[in-house]
Amino acid sequence: GPHVREDALLMDVTSVKEAPLAAMLASTKASVVGTHPMFGPNVHSVQGQRVVICPGRGERWEAWVRRMLSARGLEITDANAEQHDRAMAVVQVLNHFQTQVLGLTLARFGVPVEETLRFASPAYLMELYVAGRHFVQSPQLYGEIEMRNPRTAEVTRAFQDAARELAEVIEARDQDAFAEVFQEVRDYYGERFQREAAEQSGFLIDRLVERS
Amino acid sequence: GPHVREDALLMDVTSVKEAPLAAMLASTKASVVGTHPMFGPNVHSVQGQRVVICPGRGERWEAWVRRMLSARGLEITDANAEQHDRAMAVVQVLNHFQTQVLGLTLARFGVPVEETLRFASPAYLMELYVAGRHFVQSPQLYGEIEMRNPRTAEVTRAFQDAARELAEVIEARDQDAFAEVFQEVRDYYGERFQREAAEQSGFLIDRLVERS
Repeated sequence: GPHVREDALLMDVTSVKEAPLAAMLASTKASVVGTHPMFGPNVHSVQGQRVVICPGRGERWEAWVRRMLSARGLEITDANAEQHDRAMAVVQVLNHFQTQVLGLTLARFGVPVEETLRFASPAYLMELYVAGRHFVQSPQLYGEIEMRNPRTAEVTRAFQDAARELAEVIEARDQDAFAEVFQEVRDYYGERFQREAAEQSGFLIDRLVERS
Repeated sequence: GPHVREDALLMDVTSVKEAPLAAMLASTKASVVGTHPMFGPNVHSVQGQRVVICPGRGERWEAWVRRMLSARGLEITDANAEQHDRAMAVVQVLNHFQTQVLGLTLARFGVPVEETLRFASPAYLMELYVAGRHFVQSPQLYGEIEMRNPRTAEVTRAFQDAARELAEVIEARDQDAFAEVFQEVRDYYGERFQREAAEQSGFLIDRLVERS
């Protein structure tokens, strides 16, 4: 491209990587590095925060980007663009989509949030705080993330299929099928992660209880 | 009923209240109090934990139940059976259902949990821990809670409608409609709860970051 010198570096920080990397590679002869910082502007420190690097073209600039980010204490995750977008279909798209579906269902079901709080357990409170956090942030940003990931349709389809299947199991009062769903998810999470999740969420609930 | 004396107390601790209370009232002449402890056997202390009381019949026994629970430091929420079951349709049924749908979608989408952790932000990690915690527990118990609440079908229907609507908005890349959904949920949560949610979840994320 006429606008970027061949010996320069072109970098992006968007939430998808396949299309932006392809566009940067196609329209320039410059070095290209895709990055995705996994944190927002409101972190207290970038120390220990994660950034994904997707190599494009040019080893020397890529090495420079790595040194620069590492020197600031950032943790680097290496991935190609396809791996990145596939992981983000879960880490961002599925995660945000389920929070949005929960929020919309709550809004339409019509039990006021204060009324649910009157009945809250600490675990419910934690879920509600995590879900409430989402909507303080920018719909523009979240919309882009979900609309641009190449696997979003696959994710929302799988989500709707899972919801329908589970609703049918519950409506049929089929305890065996319900236990099978639990086992399917347990097998996916694996013992090690489940232990970690129980321990960490127990720790967080204790901090929340202490605070109230 | 022949099995409970008229001057005795009949109490239950189940997760729905309408049907059990009606059954207890219909089959005895005893005093009846419905209760629902909003905590499990693994709490460190019942101090400050919540219990719902749904009056049935007999003021003296009800007053005794109140004194007994308060003396142990429990926080009492008063509700009639219909209010209780309606609140639980959100606090338990909707909350658990969305965690189960997320888990099942994750299991079927096929990105290993370790791979998602490689790309995790602290906020994602917290969501995943909260969701992972659920499946360590008993499918038998959760199945009963979801299958017996009188409003479960209404909840799962609303959830599926919200998922379909949101998926369509995203597929159409309609940022205005997406922002409207955000606003609908913001209006439901209200400013006060959103501030609280952002503050409390920020505090929890900080504890999680400190720990890692």
